[in-house]
Amino acid sequence: MNIEPQGSISAQVSQIVISVDAMGGDKGPAAVVAGLDLFLASRPDAQILLHGNQDVLNGLVAGLAAKDRITIIHAQDVVQMTDKPAQVIRTGKNTSMWSALDSVREGAAAACISCGNTGALMALSTMRLRRIEGVKRPAIACMWPSLNPSGFNILLDAGADLKADAPDLLNYAFMGASYARNGLGLTMPRVGLLNVGTEEHKGRAELREAHDLLTAAQEAGGFDYVGFVEGGDIPMSTVDVIVTDGFTGNVALKTGEGTARLVAKMLRDMFGTNILSKLAAILAYGALKKFRHQMDPRRVNGGVFLGLNGTVVKSHGSSDATSFAAAISQAYDLAKMNFTDRVAARLATSASFTAGLDSAEPATATD
Amino acid sequence: MNIEPQGSISAQVSQIVISVDAMGGDKGPAAVVAGLDLFLASRPDAQILLHGNQDVLNGLVAGLAAKDRITIIHAQDVVQMTDKPAQVIRTGKNTSMWSALDSVREGAAAACISCGNTGALMALSTMRLRRIEGVKRPAIACMWPSLNPSGFNILLDAGADLKADAPDLLNYAFMGASYARNGLGLTMPRVGLLNVGTEEHKGRAELREAHDLLTAAQEAGGFDYVGFVEGGDIPMSTVDVIVTDGFTGNVALKTGEGTARLVAKMLRDMFGTNILSKLAAILAYGALKKFRHQMDPRRVNGGVFLGLNGTVVKSHGSSDATSFAAAISQAYDLAKMNFTDRVAARLATSASFTAGLDSAEPATATD
Repeated sequence: MNIEPQGSISAQVSQIVISVDAMGGDKGPAAVVAGLDLFLASRPDAQILLHGNQDVLNGLVAGLAAKDRITIIHAQDVVQMTDKPAQVIRTGKNTSMWSALDSVREGAAAACISCGNTGALMALSTMRLRRIEGVKRPAIACMWPSLNPSGFNILLDAGADLKADAPDLLNYAFMGASYARNGLGLTMPRVGLLNVGTEEHKGRAELREAHDLLTAAQEAGGFDYVGFVEGGDIPMSTVDVIVTDGFTGNVALKTGEGTARLVAKMLRDMFGTNILSKLAAILAYGALKKFRHQMDPRRVNGGVFLGLNGTVVKSHGSSDATSFAAAISQAYDLAKMNFTDRVAARLATSASFTAGLDSAEPATATD
Repeated sequence: MNIEPQGSISAQVSQIVISVDAMGGDKGPAAVVAGLDLFLASRPDAQILLHGNQDVLNGLVAGLAAKDRITIIHAQDVVQMTDKPAQVIRTGKNTSMWSALDSVREGAAAACISCGNTGALMALSTMRLRRIEGVKRPAIACMWPSLNPSGFNILLDAGADLKADAPDLLNYAFMGASYARNGLGLTMPRVGLLNVGTEEHKGRAELREAHDLLTAAQEAGGFDYVGFVEGGDIPMSTVDVIVTDGFTGNVALKTGEGTARLVAKMLRDMFGTNILSKLAAILAYGALKKFRHQMDPRRVNGGVFLGLNGTVVKSHGSSDATSFAAAISQAYDLAKMNFTDRVAARLATSASFTAGLDSAEPATATD
């Protein structure tokens, strides 16, 4: 028998409200709502603001066990995958994506999640939530399967911007380290700068400049700078956070995914080769299942937008219920930790390093 | 009974001379000579000019069955892995690498191969062999395991230069298509330009400019331009040649290798999980062996330098006998096809596209 008081104040404190864009994913709002159902079952203190066409959403939500924790907010329009970001900024006021972001802007929700058009989501997020002071380029951070104990490394920028200069890369290091502390539970994340070799003289000018900035700023940023790393280090246990520009990061991310798909295809072919290998597949069933789970991209679904006044999670466009549930759990976990405030506190110490090392103050932020 | 005349002219015509830098690899000249032994056993018309310390090489070569087809050329010095390219250009005159390249420069050998310092090899190759007219930036082309019937795609530039502008990328397309015709036997290779999305408005300015150049030049270049491709397409069957700048290409290459290593590690762990999975590994032995062969980086060992007056193959620094034999076979095959002349003939038609489309002439080269 539960006799603890259920006061309104403690209920308020423990509730985490997440704003969800129900539209715009390749599989439509049904997959989003199915993912919500999975998520809400495991997080009794979560509340949802669900943005999209109310006629469609009412029908989908009606049968859910946790329907009382979902508030539908009607939005007439949907951002399409083919819409250009500039156009969405001009004409997207009535879309579910805009509406979902405004719930965070107005403080009604602690984080926003969408599986719609990435470019449009980044442009709208920047416009509606604004950059944290000192941030010129926000970044998308992704989790990457790795040999580290947590099973993951963090890579940023995975494609928010095509370019990054040295101060941007320094900000990415601060933001990525914060994400590693809050998302992976690491006390002192190891940060590496992606380059074509590990020697100090290698790479483009902005990378050598960033190398000096990161070396000087690592104590204030609460991270251990391990220097230049190469593409081969991304899934390894020698580094936790890999910093790069969005063009390179996007190509690396997709190359890694493509290689994993190639290997998976070859494995399937291998186990189908003959009767012995088919028998082997049956014997190794348990181990194979674990292997598939480790490599399952749905487990790490979702890029987190960093550098904005609010937490925004981008789920894959092709998200199914399982992967959308994983992404919304990520948004929930970050919201619960006041992640945005922690990143902002760290970034406040970053600017002093690009302005000139003499003015650098010891860090006071503790994210 | 063979009664065909064995005249000296036909013998001369069919002999292929390859210049080999025996020094500078991580495993030393013994691995190189062991690789040569494997290679010479399968290519009775091959002759070798072997450059390095004669005292060391005489001892290694003495026991080989094909020792009569190896001529040792003494070189006192060795380019070290840590030497900077600019320094090697100034002071490397007595190195085995310099000597090996000069055999191609003087016409004594049809191709050169080294497993030494990549940056130094590219710098010395450019200095001693010179760029083909119209080429500003030579490129390194790599074979990449893929789902295509040949089992491979070609990626360039894999790291010769950090940058590439639109005319460079056009040249890479011409050179990569030539390599695909001669190295993979494809009549009409499909060429894609690596970008962060497939839509025409995506990516940096030089990529959109290159997109227009490749669209106009594909007929003259003897390739089918498939437009922008993403990192995930690199190991797929939708494209044969992937064109990118050397920074991005190098990161992609190493990310792919790292991902494959991660998966291999997870697979080993999987088959060692319990007694059933160990038994499964025994049952699937044949299929697993085939799978390992497909993913074995030693099979595709060697980047080919394109855009120079001579064929140069870079073998991995850590090459063992098997992988060095694979790389020298590649050098041999390209030499036998007069690959350099074919690339030069194609490139002669490339310049007209960057000068202005009006002056473009139909292609006459047939590589």
